[in-house]
Amino acid sequence: MTRMPGLGKGNGTGASSARLFTRAGYSVALVARGVDHLDKLSQELNAAGGEAAPFPVESYTPQNIKSVWDSIRAKYAAPNYRIDAAIFNVGHGVWKPFLEVTPEDVRTTLENSVEAGFAFSREAILTFKENEISESKGKRGTLIFTGATASLRGIRPQEFGKENIHVAHAIIDGVIATERLVERAPDIVQNPDRRLSPDSIAESYLHLVNQDRSSWTWELDLRPAYEKW
Amino acid sequence: MTRMPGLGKGNGTGASSARLFTRAGYSVALVARGVDHLDKLSQELNAAGGEAAPFPVESYTPQNIKSVWDSIRAKYAAPNYRIDAAIFNVGHGVWKPFLEVTPEDVRTTLENSVEAGFAFSREAILTFKENEISESKGKRGTLIFTGATASLRGIRPQEFGKENIHVAHAIIDGVIATERLVERAPDIVQNPDRRLSPDSIAESYLHLVNQDRSSWTWELDLRPAYEKW
Amino acid sequence: MTRMPGLGKGNGTGASSARLFTRAGYSVALVARGVDHLDKLSQELNAAGGEAAPFPVESYTPQNIKSVWDSIRAKYAAPNYRIDAAIFNVGHGVWKPFLEVTPEDVRTTLENSVEAGFAFSREAILTFKENEISESKGKRGTLIFTGATASLRGIRPQEFGKENIHVAHAIIDGVIATERLVERAPDIVQNPDRRLSPDSIAESYLHLVNQDRSSWTWELDLRPAYEKW
Amino acid sequence: MTRMPGLGKGNGTGASSARLFTRAGYSVALVARGVDHLDKLSQELNAAGGEAAPFPVESYTPQNIKSVWDSIRAKYAAPNYRIDAAIFNVGHGVWKPFLEVTPEDVRTTLENSVEAGFAFSREAILTFKENEISESKGKRGTLIFTGATASLRGIRPQEFGKENIHVAHAIIDGVIATERLVERAPDIVQNPDRRLSPDSIAESYLHLVNQDRSSWTWELDLRPAYEKW
Repeated sequence: MTRMPGLGKGNGTGASSARLFTRAGYSVALVARGVDHLDKLSQELNAAGGEAAPFPVESYTPQNIKSVWDSIRAKYAAPNYRIDAAIFNVGHGVWKPFLEVTPEDVRTTLENSVEAGFAFSREAILTFKENEISESKGKRGTLIFTGATASLRGIRPQEFGKENIHVAHAIIDGVIATERLVERAPDIVQNPDRRLSPDSIAESYLHLVNQDRSSWTWELDLRPAYEKW
Repeated sequence: MTRMPGLGKGNGTGASSARLFTRAGYSVALVARGVDHLDKLSQELNAAGGEAAPFPVESYTPQNIKSVWDSIRAKYAAPNYRIDAAIFNVGHGVWKPFLEVTPEDVRTTLENSVEAGFAFSREAILTFKENEISESKGKRGTLIFTGATASLRGIRPQEFGKENIHVAHAIIDGVIATERLVERAPDIVQNPDRRLSPDSIAESYLHLVNQDRSSWTWELDLRPAYEKW
Repeated sequence: MTRMPGLGKGNGTGASSARLFTRAGYSVALVARGVDHLDKLSQELNAAGGEAAPFPVESYTPQNIKSVWDSIRAKYAAPNYRIDAAIFNVGHGVWKPFLEVTPEDVRTTLENSVEAGFAFSREAILTFKENEISESKGKRGTLIFTGATASLRGIRPQEFGKENIHVAHAIIDGVIATERLVERAPDIVQNPDRRLSPDSIAESYLHLVNQDRSSWTWELDLRPAYEKW
Repeated sequence: MTRMPGLGKGNGTGASSARLFTRAGYSVALVARGVDHLDKLSQELNAAGGEAAPFPVESYTPQNIKSVWDSIRAKYAAPNYRIDAAIFNVGHGVWKPFLEVTPEDVRTTLENSVEAGFAFSREAILTFKENEISESKGKRGTLIFTGATASLRGIRPQEFGKENIHVAHAIIDGVIATERLVERAPDIVQNPDRRLSPDSIAESYLHLVNQDRSSWTWELDLRPAYEKW
């Protein structure tokens, strides 16, 4: 049995991934801020026959991220479990013209993307290093990053390839049909050619996790059919 | 029913894709030079319960490529069939130090990659344009290119996104465990961390074909775990 | 008359740029931590017939960067001066294997590269926006970033092209022959094929500043002849 | 004394480079199709006090390119001369929607860009390999490519760095104010924010040739201030 700690708001890509991975037989650790919607999602997944548990955090400081990974490692310990996939969904900030970006915007974005991403990756990789190489996939684990180029810049995917740890970067280039977008831009949400479905993103993540050691994708993009640059 | 014309030597990525796609229910048109191994592969696929047919070509001139597509379109005509995926596998030439590359090497490589690629893409896209947008995937068709960056340079994937035609480029960065490699470098072939399995590549191709219109990958790389640059 | 605020240690690329730009007739504002070496460099430049002034900062917080720019704008006010070039030299941290990077390393690197870079760019662009378009170059100003991809990620060079502000990114891929390197790796320093000379980097910066509006380079790399990746 | 063989139409980037390099003291070998305008340009350059000679070719076949280089090497032989820079200007074809591109368009473009580029590079590099490393720049020679990514794909710049041969790729992203453009789009030509001046491109080429071995640019882009993607 396995599970996938995934930071995220609880809807969007993280929630879709949780739904798809529980259906695929994974036990899923849900990590996010906000106890309520984590509990709600966890109940939904378990009611649907999946196995999921909420791991709320107050904020994404390195300390909190280490602490939540300690809890996850305690709950999903060998020999009953093996932690072999981890997904980090960076919260996309609101895009602003350059001159309107405040120092606080910069700081917050860096904390939630680069700093949290470093801390999360570190724990994921330390955890995977304890795993044996799986027979079927030839992996110790898979770490997937969503979106923020910056968050991956500090890690070189190939640095861990030689330890059979698969690090992949998914560039999400377009708007994701989250609940917030439903309210803000219903016309876009209704047009499947113009926005990304979190369920479809989740399909690509499951594909990455299933890639065996001979053919790993380090980077892929995901865009809607009519994407405009 | 559908099928997938795929240029290739009949072993390697093309053959693996043919095996996976027939298992997934596709009718597959096999396009390559060399009647014998095409017949052999076709018989293997049909014996395994799949549906496949050989379409040998003498060489990859634009005229021959158009001609073989005419044959494919005749055989797999509506309403019984719908041609909705096409894979172009560029034959990788042998790498040489720059000063050893002859004008003939350059010419042959361009004919088999760029010129054949243009002709193949043209026919694929003209064929897909006749299709309705499918309900399940929101596509008229999927065109996948293997490897040669040059071959894709003349086509902008997003040029056809607005017609719901998905063009994807798979960068294969490493050696593929083909039969030829088995003879030449058995030590590499036996190490799944160092070479690409054509079966694993085929899995990623099937994933691309199945991506729905909300989240298409235009480009992905595929590399073994221990890849050395 | 013009000048070029440039963050930096006072040796290396910043100092070489200061020497070249003063020789080319620019008045140069030197911005760095450390009063002593800034004073020393300033005296050297003035003794050589150039015009330079030190602007020490305690640290590269957004507040300090804004404050030092205020001082620079006060000293180099119109009509006697026109601030038309700004160079931001990111201090390269020491590279470590991923698992040895601490949260403090991440934080410090982000502060000195991304956060300082945002603040510096903001002030540079606000300053340039007050300039007329120059007749000879067709520019309001030139902003050059050294090295850290991350520091430029928040700014899109073309966002300011339409205001005739030239933003360029110089990717320095190799070790720079700074004084610190002289001590640490004298063998590399003595081999001009293996390390970057800060004087040569400065030549490229002066070239960027002199590019007229018809042909601007947004990004260029600089590497020694024998660079190893 | 040195010279710079440069393919090109005789106006545009090639002619501007010839003007700038003769002014900078280089002897220039002009290579292009069309005897008349080559003679005219050559006379113009010599009348202005430069040193230039025409080397017309009938077409850019590998044989013709080798042959013209033989003539150039004969005329500019040591010890009076040293061939230390070569510029290859790819003729940009007319952009067409993908489905309007004919097999002949593809073939012609490949012949004039990739095949001619290979042949030209081969001769340039073989010529440079005979040179000593210059004291001032630490180079055996500089080879500059304009524009077509494809033309450079077969050569890895760093393959020759270790022989002190500098290979650079200039990505020209925008329309160049050539004579043909003057007729077709006078409004663009008159706006220096929207098109590239061949004179400005030439300035960047001279800068590349002058870069010493410690800090070479392998790739740079050149775009007008208001470029639209």
